Amino acid sequence: MTIRIAVDVMGGDNGPGVIIEGAVAGARSLGAKVLLVGVESEIQSGLKGTDSSGVEVEVVPATDVITMHDHPAQAVRRKPQSSINVALRLIAEGRADAMVSPGNSGAVMAGALMVLSRIKGIERPAIASYIPTVRGKTLLLDLGAVVDPKPSHLVQFAEMGQVYAQRILNLPQPTIGLLSNGEEPTKGNALVQQVYPLLQARDDLNFAGNVEGKDVAMGTVDIVVTDGFTGNVALKTAEGVANFLVEILREEIMKTLPRKLAGLILRPAFRDMRRRLDYAEIGGAPLLGVNGSVIICHGRSSARAIETALTAASRSFEHDLAGEIGRRNANRPQAAEA
Amino acid sequence: MTIRIAVDVMGGDNGPGVIIEGAVAGARSLGAKVLLVGVESEIQSGLKGTDSSGVEVEVVPATDVITMHDHPAQAVRRKPQSSINVALRLIAEGRADAMVSPGNSGAVMAGALMVLSRIKGIERPAIASYIPTVRGKTLLLDLGAVVDPKPSHLVQFAEMGQVYAQRILNLPQPTIGLLSNGEEPTKGNALVQQVYPLLQARDDLNFAGNVEGKDVAMGTVDIVVTDGFTGNVALKTAEGVANFLVEILREEIMKTLPRKLAGLILRPAFRDMRRRLDYAEIGGAPLLGVNGSVIICHGRSSARAIETALTAASRSFEHDLAGEIGRRNANRPQAAEA
Repeated sequence: MTIRIAVDVMGGDNGPGVIIEGAVAGARSLGAKVLLVGVESEIQSGLKGTDSSGVEVEVVPATDVITMHDHPAQAVRRKPQSSINVALRLIAEGRADAMVSPGNSGAVMAGALMVLSRIKGIERPAIASYIPTVRGKTLLLDLGAVVDPKPSHLVQFAEMGQVYAQRILNLPQPTIGLLSNGEEPTKGNALVQQVYPLLQARDDLNFAGNVEGKDVAMGTVDIVVTDGFTGNVALKTAEGVANFLVEILREEIMKTLPRKLAGLILRPAFRDMRRRLDYAEIGGAPLLGVNGSVIICHGRSSARAIETALTAASRSFEHDLAGEIGRRNANRPQAAEA
Repeated sequence: MTIRIAVDVMGGDNGPGVIIEGAVAGARSLGAKVLLVGVESEIQSGLKGTDSSGVEVEVVPATDVITMHDHPAQAVRRKPQSSINVALRLIAEGRADAMVSPGNSGAVMAGALMVLSRIKGIERPAIASYIPTVRGKTLLLDLGAVVDPKPSHLVQFAEMGQVYAQRILNLPQPTIGLLSNGEEPTKGNALVQQVYPLLQARDDLNFAGNVEGKDVAMGTVDIVVTDGFTGNVALKTAEGVANFLVEILREEIMKTLPRKLAGLILRPAFRDMRRRLDYAEIGGAPLLGVNGSVIICHGRSSARAIETALTAASRSFEHDLAGEIGRRNANRPQAAEA
């Protein structure tokens, strides 16, 4: 069966063109059908500049757009015909298997909760993303869905992260770290100190204790759990430092002629280095905890980033992450609706 | 007058040797007197391996040591003869002008509050540090002194950061950003949303609004204010990513012979790059809000890191940061003791 992926082509910082280009490329490499959701005239003109031969493309009109400046929860209610809402409804109506959006991430989350609803037993969804590390990749969550979570929310983030790592990365018992300001069990703010014993008490979670910011880049554990505020700051700090380093490396190399020549020889090495750091290679961030496969992308996503986000969407659907999260919660005796 | 700097030589991860070496080197370049505080026999054997010619060195015995595993507040009470306590008392007794410690930072803070007491009008001290950015340096605080601050604490962190930037960096009106999960005023966790209007209402603070994790590396503002939990995570994430990048750059360069040769030519460029990233070049972190010049260093500080920490200690004392913070609070009508 061909997988059908709805892509919200509006809401990207650089207009629909790059989103359409990435969506079509992603569908081609996956052998998927892509449903392009947005203002019809803009999609048609975007498609003119894109080679979509051999790719099953359906244009799904959406007359409204939610911008980055809209209030997320209000916007999804006031703009039912926005591309985000229309794309999410395609999943609810069984016309699409997954959805990708580079738009207002708060609105994607609010819309997903409204249109798809949350998985029973999960109080709050979480945005998760693999980030590049010394040892490969680490799953970091939450990245901003819940900025003031309760302790139970973080435990559920750990549960969902575990399902993701088991299903997508084939890690039977992924290690889980709790992001803190020190490794000792006594470290942490009030939230972390409440979450620590809850995670430690869970036989079904491979809890490795507290981890520090440096571990996010080292890959010390497979999954790093944190509140959405801290996770967002950590991710953006990591991106900022990576960009900063590439910039000063370039500055240093441009200082003298011999350095410039050596820099030319090393160009492939630098390209490989940047690829290992490039968040576009990692792909979009799954929104875990809602009934459906929803992938959130950077507003400034390149075509390549959208292409890999479609792969993430496809994996999320094929491995039935939402279904598995739901089944585990149904089988867990202590799971209670909040 | 010769400045007198007390250095806690115990508590560093690599033993007293490197701390003594850095302390003597720092005192030499500053023309300062250094008071080495710790177990006397260890200091004497450390001094044997160090060229201390031309440097005024006093050995101040301390019979006890606070380790990284000790509970900070309990340890400073139960170990009055620890090197941290003894070094702090040298300031209180007028025998030293400033103090540097690579030991348990929580214990240094608890000890400083006990021995030196906090500045009137400052409810909680903050650990601040300059971090390298694209545009130079940004002062980030708090780095872990207060993991669950109240809104008023963050406003005081902004005030203290302003004094630091004005006095040390000669920035008449340093810009202040509030670390958040987005730039919009509506973004942030509950704490940030409470602090935002308080900072905005202050005519004497050059508040630039919310900043994101990436701004910590970009240098968008002169001062980034945050709670000690988030600040600690952001700083350690930045350090971790910087180390990660240097590591993968090395890996990529070692892959082929032409790359290795080009890498040799670029060795000075890489060295300059690392210097711009190296936290040892930035020096120790001042503990702001206590009556005295106290500099906290990494446990794994190199001799070079300790040397620059002595410079930070000297600056903190010469620019009378503690006195200036106290005077501004005394002159501020709305300042109230908590």
